Amino acid sequence: MFEYDATVRLRETDAGGVMFFARRFDLMHDAYEALMEARGLSVAQILAEGAYMLPVVHAECDYSAPLFTGDRVRVRLEVEELRTRRFTIRYEIEGQGKAVGAGKTVHVAVDMRAKRAIPLPTELRQALRGSATT
Amino acid sequence: MFEYDATVRLRETDAGGVMFFARRFDLMHDAYEALMEARGLSVAQILAEGAYMLPVVHAECDYSAPLFTGDRVRVRLEVEELRTRRFTIRYEIEGQGKAVGAGKTVHVAVDMRAKRAIPLPTELRQALRGSATT
Amino acid sequence: MFEYDATVRLRETDAGGVMFFARRFDLMHDAYEALMEARGLSVAQILAEGAYMLPVVHAECDYSAPLFTGDRVRVRLEVEELRTRRFTIRYEIEGQGKAVGAGKTVHVAVDMRAKRAIPLPTELRQALRGSATT
Amino acid sequence: MFEYDATVRLRETDAGGVMFFARRFDLMHDAYEALMEARGLSVAQILAEGAYMLPVVHAECDYSAPLFTGDRVRVRLEVEELRTRRFTIRYEIEGQGKAVGAGKTVHVAVDMRAKRAIPLPTELRQALRGSATT
Repeated sequence: MFEYDATVRLRETDAGGVMFFARRFDLMHDAYEALMEARGLSVAQILAEGAYMLPVVHAECDYSAPLFTGDRVRVRLEVEELRTRRFTIRYEIEGQGKAVGAGKTVHVAVDMRAKRAIPLPTELRQALRGSATT
Repeated sequence: MFEYDATVRLRETDAGGVMFFARRFDLMHDAYEALMEARGLSVAQILAEGAYMLPVVHAECDYSAPLFTGDRVRVRLEVEELRTRRFTIRYEIEGQGKAVGAGKTVHVAVDMRAKRAIPLPTELRQALRGSATT
Repeated sequence: MFEYDATVRLRETDAGGVMFFARRFDLMHDAYEALMEARGLSVAQILAEGAYMLPVVHAECDYSAPLFTGDRVRVRLEVEELRTRRFTIRYEIEGQGKAVGAGKTVHVAVDMRAKRAIPLPTELRQALRGSATT
Repeated sequence: MFEYDATVRLRETDAGGVMFFARRFDLMHDAYEALMEARGLSVAQILAEGAYMLPVVHAECDYSAPLFTGDRVRVRLEVEELRTRRFTIRYEIEGQGKAVGAGKTVHVAVDMRAKRAIPLPTELRQALRGSATT
């Protein structure tokens, strides 16, 4: 699985003293962006080309332990499912070396001009399969 | 169902031109805080008492349409399930009067001193049932 | 002065128990977007037209008291200075009815195609003067 | 000067296509937290001790160029001024190797129990001077 490391920052915590639950979705997407970069097809590049976008159509996360300011976080992620019109990324989240939760995001491809869902472009399928890894 | 209104702000959108997916979880929690206030047991009060917290143990959202800067958003929410040790809030999200998605958050109660899950306190159960509505 | 009301949400606070300092800049921009809407020239409309943008070239804030989860916030704002190529918005921030800080944002107009600063467009000058108030 | 590296993520950009101005203050504080960690007195540790906090009393930023999704950012920072009751951190921000802005944050120390400003604690002064660098 691809690994993405981060440190919990004060701004991500709330007055309860722990990382606000929604910040884990930010973290998951950061890790997904890093994965795409590593596979040679960055979100920046997709945005620059302007042909299609990859909106999230479903997102979920389970929380088994809190994260605190300064905690070292590791996100392990992989393409769990790759279908004609959607793909699923699965995330395992660790804090200070222990499992603290797991999540998923499901993405589709949307043609920017036609504003409708399209089959996943070939360059994207290759990147998600890892066969285009640079 | 309880209704919470907001306007999509520029900071919530991303370079793809739409509200970043994780911001819907922020929106859902804002609506949940407003619901609790309306029921007479605000998150601020629970924090001030310092006896327990209500961490999210599961969160999910389905997205059926994008939201844009300036869109009027209405979140309709309700306590979907109230059990001894957990409760579930269900959210329906509308943008400009049309359904754009739906989500859920599942919360437990954690004793602040003992750092472990406890049965939902009575004042909380009453607020969630709406019987303590002020 | 134009008034914008909000409630401090849990996600805006940090583990120190107070609103994270950078969230006040979010709040200031939210208030500025509401002002523009009230003056008949929303940020959404400017984005949709795609002719120019109004990037911030300077931002500052002074903090005299903290804000807490659930606090009622009022932002009073006005166009402090309107020049040929830039304008300044001044903000006074109140929490629970008491002054807690003040800030400023300075904006320029940038032509989206040419990617360079331009004189403030006429429609914008009118909105900022309040003469286009709907 | 201390250096802190980051990558601009999609969530930090807005529908104008660039990093939302307030996110630079998030970035500056992330860099400050990393500096404190490197100097052996982390924000996490200060929070855990619970004796005092270091709230921001003034923050400012100048923007000379935009930042885009995927941009490599380097923040160079240093303690610009260290006085009895306050300290100033100065930040220079680079994107893709070019200067894009500069900012400042001014912090004071507040006793958590008495809820009032105090002289900067000795351990903090040492860390800020770099004499406690581990």
